[in-house]
Parts: sequence; structure tokens; C-alpha cells
Amino acid sequence: MTKQFHDAVLGSDALDQLFREARTYNGWLGKEVSEGQIHQIYDLLKMAPTSANMQPARFVWVQSPEAKAKLVDCVAEGNKDKVQAAPVTVIIGFDIDFHEELPWLFPHADAKSWFEGDVEGRKEGAFRNSALQGAYLMLAARAVGLDCGAMSGYDTDAVNAAFFADTPTVKANFICSIGYGDPESIFDRSPRPDFDTFNSVV
Amino acid sequence: MTKQFHDAVLGSDALDQLFREARTYNGWLGKEVSEGQIHQIYDLLKMAPTSANMQPARFVWVQSPEAKAKLVDCVAEGNKDKVQAAPVTVIIGFDIDFHEELPWLFPHADAKSWFEGDVEGRKEGAFRNSALQGAYLMLAARAVGLDCGAMSGYDTDAVNAAFFADTPTVKANFICSIGYGDPESIFDRSPRPDFDTFNSVV
Repeated sequence: MTKQFHDAVLGSDALDQLFREARTYNGWLGKEVSEGQIHQIYDLLKMAPTSANMQPARFVWVQSPEAKAKLVDCVAEGNKDKVQAAPVTVIIGFDIDFHEELPWLFPHADAKSWFEGDVEGRKEGAFRNSALQGAYLMLAARAVGLDCGAMSGYDTDAVNAAFFADTPTVKANFICSIGYGDPESIFDRSPRPDFDTFNSVV
Repeated sequence: MTKQFHDAVLGSDALDQLFREARTYNGWLGKEVSEGQIHQIYDLLKMAPTSANMQPARFVWVQSPEAKAKLVDCVAEGNKDKVQAAPVTVIIGFDIDFHEELPWLFPHADAKSWFEGDVEGRKEGAFRNSALQGAYLMLAARAVGLDCGAMSGYDTDAVNAAFFADTPTVKANFICSIGYGDPESIFDRSPRPDFDTFNSVV
């Protein structure tokens, strides 16, 4: 029996926690993120939809001092302190050869054959759907009481060389620190558009 | 004072509604989505993070019989009935010239200058961040008690011509139907990977 939630609007506190009051953090309180919390985040985000259940994201959770030093070397000057201080920074990568996994990920149809030989289509699909999964990751982290700070200011080739040398079909999409945000480290809230600015109903 | 939610894990029902029990729907109950609900979804999703608050997504909410007929013409055979029956289908587009809006969207710095002249960088940033916004849209719709069915099976050039002819810097990223899902219309749940399959902690 499919569980449905029609017209069940989440409570105001939950909407604040996920969307309205959550903020992007640039600094972190000195409290670790446990491996249990990392699993908890993944176990939520993996349930959210990707096209043909392709699940193209490959997540590298950078937590040890050695791995952190490697990542700090790859990021833009303004992001080095953020990554150094974060309890964990996730590299959200995507596998261009995700279709090899479709026989078990999407058993309803021969989805692998849809992508064979179409490298450009696979790149686009993997990039789009791993970005979706990165967004799910951020909202899942917030849903379990953690904060995020996503970044795209880094040298992509350097990250790919440092973390995906053994899996050359995997490339970095973006990176995101996760932890207990330091309230002193946020910017003033940037303006948000009115509905009519970027929407039309036709 | 920044509101924080450290270690506040959302309740089990909320996690089910957002992630664990929510499903992708292919058919819809005959109940409309109101303009108020559309605004409610946008007012949540716009709060979630994009790089330098670029907010590159441009949303076209296709609801009238005329607009729906135009969109049905553009989608793959297997998606025509889904779009026809859905109360609303959103085209998540992205504006490659999003940087023109940065002076008011990101008042902290001259972010517009970072993107001027860099068309490829803008395409990548707009595509990535509008995908994030599409994911936020799906989780926001679920958060207010609605269901989603995202699709990338359509003729992108045809959608761009039919809906973005007057705004040629805007292109479609993906489309997503929203409504009250018909429980008869879902597939069996596709398998989800164990943590170790697509994750590493380093």
C-alpha cells in the first residue's frame, strides 16, 4: 500500500529548518559529524528521484587530515579556510558511465541500451542528475539537523586528479561542507525574487 | 539572531513524506493545484542555496488547456498522457544571462563581473544551479503535500521554441508534473544502493 501525504503541509518549524531559516555557512563550530550521520544523510538522499533511477552521483566524504589537505590544495583561496575548518566536505562527483549500473538500478526495462554510444547524452544526464542528488544531499543534511556550505570555487581538473584518478569516468560536479554552522560566519541574507520575476503561469 | 536546528532530526513522518515513502507518479487524481499552492512551492524553493544567489531557474507553470497542448506536442510518446493528465507541469528553464541580475541578487560583491565574457562558465553554472532549484522544487512540492513526476523525455529544441522564443537566453533543463498522484500509476520501487556502492569516506 503506497503511503500518501496529500495536503499534509509540513509544520512551520520543519519548513524553517529545510528552507526558510536555513543558511549557507562559511565557518563551523568545533563539533564532528559522525559516520552514522553521514549514512543517515545518504540513506535519505538516495530515495529521491533520478531519471531512470540512474543515481549517477559518486560521493567522496573528505574527513581525514590527509584527504582534507589534498582538497584544500585544490580549492580557491577564499574557500581554503572553510574546507580546512569543516568537519566534512563532500565531493559530489558524477559517473559518465552510470549506464553500466542500470541493469540492477532500473530492472523495469533495458535502460542501459538507451545510453550506449551516446557519450554527450550521458554527460548531460549524469551532470543534471548528480546536481539533483547534490541538492537532495543538502536538504537531507538539514533534515537531520546539520548545516551546509556548498562551493563551486575550486580547480576541477585538480580535484579530478586528486580524488578520481583511479575512476577516470568520474568527474566533480560541486563540493559541499557539512557540519554545525557557526552563526558568526554567515553573510546577510541575499534578496529573494518575487514570484513574478522568474515565474510565469500559462 | 540566526535560527539554528542543530541535531533536530525531523520526525519520521516528515522524512517519509520528503524522501522515504514519496514516489514518482505517472498518473494523477482529478484534483487541481491552486495558484496559491504554486506560490507556496516557489516561496520555499527560492530560499534554498544557489551559487552567489544566482537563481538561474526560470519556471513556466503549464496549466491552461492551450499551453498543455503545446507542451504535449513536444514530449516523448510515453510522456504525452502524463502531461495531458497532470494538473500542472513545470518547465524548469535556465537563463544563461543570469549574471545580469546579480547586482540586486548578490549585493555583497560585484559578482556580475565574474561571469561577463564567460559564456561556457555561465552555461555550466546556470545548468547546475537550475538543476539544484528543480530538486528544491520537487522537495518543496512534497513538503506541502503534493506529488511529483519529473521527466527529461522531450524535444528540447521544440520546448525552447514553443516556450522561450521571446527569451532566447533561456533553455529548458527538465520538466516536472505536480499534483495529487494516483497510487495506481507508480512502478515498483527501484532498488537503492548500499552506502559503500557509490560512497567513500576518506
